[in-house]
Amino acid sequence: SLCMPPQYRYDAARTALAAKKHVFLEKPPGATVSEVEDLKTLAAANGVSLFASWHSRYAPAVEAARAFLGSAKIKSAAINWKEDVRRWHPNQEWIWAPGGFGVFDPGINALSIATHILPAMFITSAVLDFPENRASPVAAHVAFRTSDGLPVTMELDWLQTGPQSWDIVAETDKGQMVLSGGGTKLVVDGKVIHDEPEAEYPMLYQRFAEIVRAGTSDVDLAPLQHVADAFMLGKRNVVEAFFD
Amino acid sequence: SLCMPPQYRYDAARTALAAKKHVFLEKPPGATVSEVEDLKTLAAANGVSLFASWHSRYAPAVEAARAFLGSAKIKSAAINWKEDVRRWHPNQEWIWAPGGFGVFDPGINALSIATHILPAMFITSAVLDFPENRASPVAAHVAFRTSDGLPVTMELDWLQTGPQSWDIVAETDKGQMVLSGGGTKLVVDGKVIHDEPEAEYPMLYQRFAEIVRAGTSDVDLAPLQHVADAFMLGKRNVVEAFFD
Repeated sequence: SLCMPPQYRYDAARTALAAKKHVFLEKPPGATVSEVEDLKTLAAANGVSLFASWHSRYAPAVEAARAFLGSAKIKSAAINWKEDVRRWHPNQEWIWAPGGFGVFDPGINALSIATHILPAMFITSAVLDFPENRASPVAAHVAFRTSDGLPVTMELDWLQTGPQSWDIVAETDKGQMVLSGGGTKLVVDGKVIHDEPEAEYPMLYQRFAEIVRAGTSDVDLAPLQHVADAFMLGKRNVVEAFFD
Repeated sequence: SLCMPPQYRYDAARTALAAKKHVFLEKPPGATVSEVEDLKTLAAANGVSLFASWHSRYAPAVEAARAFLGSAKIKSAAINWKEDVRRWHPNQEWIWAPGGFGVFDPGINALSIATHILPAMFITSAVLDFPENRASPVAAHVAFRTSDGLPVTMELDWLQTGPQSWDIVAETDKGQMVLSGGGTKLVVDGKVIHDEPEAEYPMLYQRFAEIVRAGTSDVDLAPLQHVADAFMLGKRNVVEAFFD
């Protein structure tokens, strides 16, 4: 399992795959989408498994949310991921550096759940708020639409103090679905369906063992792709300086 | 063939593919990588061909350059794409808007050739120069490495007056290769191998007819992916204002 910074991942993973070792990459799977595509090809060529893991997908209520949305007609969805960077990443310079993702570091967790439970979706516009003294965004306002044209919004904010928000809300013909607590709690039309503490890592290792046994790889790049797309077409907005 | 602005492509292409029409997308194939991935899936599901075309790949000396590099051991490569935006895109506001790609609009032509003739490569660092009054870069300095660790640099500049540079240079064990004029002229160790005027569009339509007859698609997203990756991990540098 590789959980080093993204800049060193590629060489380490390449060496391990070339030595015919199975590789488990922590999220994000790389510094660029292109390099992870190459690792995927390399794993297949060497007959070993590559697991580009997304820990948030293994939160306890995610599969139930996926099943509910699969059975309903979705009208719209909203992703709200708002946390306090000073609490979770105090004095971490790398996260504000170019390639550090900024608020997309937690945001990619939201995207890893959203891309698993919602239909395929594409960014139509994005505004990224960069503190004037930092190279990565502190907030992002992203509009997606699904392949059927339904609206999905995503609000990422790293300056939320007090209660933290890690929620995905969907309006459907079977009522409102709220997946909150980062995928730990599922409520449909006010009724609690699931509410359990997370146990993501045992699930992740179970999944890794499963793909190794099956001789396959699990490399879904959609969450990282959306981040790259957001940077490519996002409007940059300069906001006030951030100090830890 | 769709050559409308990227923001409207997806809906038009989706409608055409759903009606079981073959689709030819001009470069760039979309506003995001994610939406083109979806079109690719949709084309396959509808049994029709999707061609995400890269016109510069059909410049007359490109295949000869690819053959030469395939037979040589590459030591390093440099992409230099420098042109005068005032001459080629005068008063085009959209190209400077978010999602307009800026200097990556011509730069993606360079990337479409480079990704075809060089080994797989990945960005390791990038600096993007944004004029203080524009939302897209006017220059970019990008470092790649190939899967074998060889260095490839890319210099994009939109303020070059006088002679324009559309060159890819590779140092190899069989001498220096210079592909210049946007893929029209190939020189190896000072010897001219190819020097012909371009005839890209007849070749593009020939390729489209070929994939339609073969019942396949041709959707190589590598050039657009590198642009998205460059925006995601690039350092933003603010430079002087640009006025047409």
